Amino acid sequence: MDQLGSFKVLKQEGEARRGVLETAHGTVQTPVFMAVGTKATVKAMTPEELKDCGTQVVLGNTYHLHLRPGEKLIKKMGGLHKFMNWHGPILTDSGGFQVFSLSQLRTMSEEGVEFRSHLDGAKYFISPEKSMEIQMDLGSDIIMAFDECLKYPATEDEIQKSMDLTYRWLKRSKEAMTRQESLLFGIVQGGLSLKHRKYSLDQVTSVDLPGYALGGFSVGEPIELMHELVPQIAPLMPKNKPRYLMGVGTPLDLILAVDAGVDMFDCVMPTRVARNGTLYTWQGKVSIKRNEYKEDDSPLDPECDCYTCRTYSKAYLRHLFLSGEILGSRLNTIHNLHFYMALMRKSREAIEQGIWHSFKQMCVQRFAKQQTT
Amino acid sequence: MDQLGSFKVLKQEGEARRGVLETAHGTVQTPVFMAVGTKATVKAMTPEELKDCGTQVVLGNTYHLHLRPGEKLIKKMGGLHKFMNWHGPILTDSGGFQVFSLSQLRTMSEEGVEFRSHLDGAKYFISPEKSMEIQMDLGSDIIMAFDECLKYPATEDEIQKSMDLTYRWLKRSKEAMTRQESLLFGIVQGGLSLKHRKYSLDQVTSVDLPGYALGGFSVGEPIELMHELVPQIAPLMPKNKPRYLMGVGTPLDLILAVDAGVDMFDCVMPTRVARNGTLYTWQGKVSIKRNEYKEDDSPLDPECDCYTCRTYSKAYLRHLFLSGEILGSRLNTIHNLHFYMALMRKSREAIEQGIWHSFKQMCVQRFAKQQTT
Repeated sequence: MDQLGSFKVLKQEGEARRGVLETAHGTVQTPVFMAVGTKATVKAMTPEELKDCGTQVVLGNTYHLHLRPGEKLIKKMGGLHKFMNWHGPILTDSGGFQVFSLSQLRTMSEEGVEFRSHLDGAKYFISPEKSMEIQMDLGSDIIMAFDECLKYPATEDEIQKSMDLTYRWLKRSKEAMTRQESLLFGIVQGGLSLKHRKYSLDQVTSVDLPGYALGGFSVGEPIELMHELVPQIAPLMPKNKPRYLMGVGTPLDLILAVDAGVDMFDCVMPTRVARNGTLYTWQGKVSIKRNEYKEDDSPLDPECDCYTCRTYSKAYLRHLFLSGEILGSRLNTIHNLHFYMALMRKSREAIEQGIWHSFKQMCVQRFAKQQTT
Repeated sequence: MDQLGSFKVLKQEGEARRGVLETAHGTVQTPVFMAVGTKATVKAMTPEELKDCGTQVVLGNTYHLHLRPGEKLIKKMGGLHKFMNWHGPILTDSGGFQVFSLSQLRTMSEEGVEFRSHLDGAKYFISPEKSMEIQMDLGSDIIMAFDECLKYPATEDEIQKSMDLTYRWLKRSKEAMTRQESLLFGIVQGGLSLKHRKYSLDQVTSVDLPGYALGGFSVGEPIELMHELVPQIAPLMPKNKPRYLMGVGTPLDLILAVDAGVDMFDCVMPTRVARNGTLYTWQGKVSIKRNEYKEDDSPLDPECDCYTCRTYSKAYLRHLFLSGEILGSRLNTIHNLHFYMALMRKSREAIEQGIWHSFKQMCVQRFAKQQTT
């Protein structure tokens, strides 16, 4: 294994990169989609099923795990890997996004954020130092810096202040890092103007780190603004470091961002919409409850080789969904995660083989339609 | 394979029997606990996981499947086995129990029962003939006769009338059976007096069938009445036919009934209480939410070799349960079903080895305690 945290671009076509990142729990092949395992479980899935789907990295949420069961308990149980029986790489977010979206009665200061838990109203305080401590206690392989995640829309003045605070917090985050095995990634903010993004990028990359992320997308802005901005800012990020677009997105979003040079993704979408009966297929988006599938004994996606598609009919998936059966959530989640992982695997192969451009075109053609439905 | 429907008692100790039943989808080793798969799925489980747990037979509910998705649809999809991807034996109940416990605005007649669905109020009619038709459409291996399931308590007169009706319906059920591969079982009713049970037994066994069941237990009566009556009636049932105690029960109930000569069981309990965080172990019943398991990194049951016990700590199971995670329902269900199947496997082995009596004593000692908690 190469040195911990090393990132190599093996092949590039246009801006699209095929890379390899070394973590303390194994090598990550990029572009990669990371499965979201908010509360120490990717909803409805066992670790073995995640592997079968092609999952390389699981993401844990610092905010949720801090509140319940608490990082000290997890540390005592041997760390998050052992606790949840996932022995591949784990990335944790900083808690910032959830503090700003889920918690109540927030009080911001230079020092950090005081807030009340959405579970029971209990009072908590998270600072950059506290966020690092929690993530290190969890034993995370990739730790995200504690940043302020601004609401959309925000004023010029709010954006400027927020970027500067995020920068000061980044320096404190790095300072607080004492765990060798964990890689700290910085987060570029700056809202939806290229000017601010460049400013934040300069700030964040002035701190030497093993990876950099784009935060503050997927926060309610029109998706076209992201599609426009990511190709302008991603190529400006350090070429020899992984680039992570946080919280994104649909299959189309992923393909467009890979094309812009992004290497890493995470999103609750494939797992969340699966539980609501929405399935991504190579033929388009499927709402499994629809009457047209009532007596459809064909598999969900004839181009997919996941357990769900190999084994069950659309009629059965529809029946399970309408009956509110747990197995329905399971089979749908297996398929959607498998689809996302296959999309990334095919992207990696396309870049390796020098056929990324035509692969991308095919995907855009297929997914642009479902994006709007 | 022996002839379809043949039942052989391989070994007997006291009344406890070790038997083998031949069905169109394979051989069933008895005593057997059948997993309840109400709506064409054993809740939270894949068929592969059911097999791993040692499941031999899955039970489907005629009432639920008739209402949704409908047996005609399932027949069109190739039958219940193919629809749900369970290729072992399937037993279906007659719908009687649910008609009497779940449906609304019932009108009983000699012909059958008219009722309104608990789902949408739609009007349905089930007769013995209709019940047989539904179960044959499902492609069930073991079909239960359509009987009246009396509420508890009932008057002498109600019991007498009900037994006589059940007898007439049994004859009509048999008359309506046209599917060679399906085995029809008759159901002995008669409430909680031995006199009525004997009367019903005489009626029901006057019809030659491949198996007989005891119905009308687990309907709200004090459990001691069942423990008293089953050992009096079960040994009077035909010795060369499987005996099935419907809807029962706890681990203690099963052991006592095996001791009384019962061969087959089903119950929603292990799967239902699993989802509510109650787990059966060889050391007693465990309520996983309890504070004492908060930092307990030991497995749920050190005597159990199921996936859950091999892989996870009590602390993790507690966390999943308190977080309402689907994986918690899954892991708990895997354990409870595995426990029930292991209990039956060990029972079979004990009878084979001629050590049933001491095995039973050990179980009673272990389970009598948890019965009352």
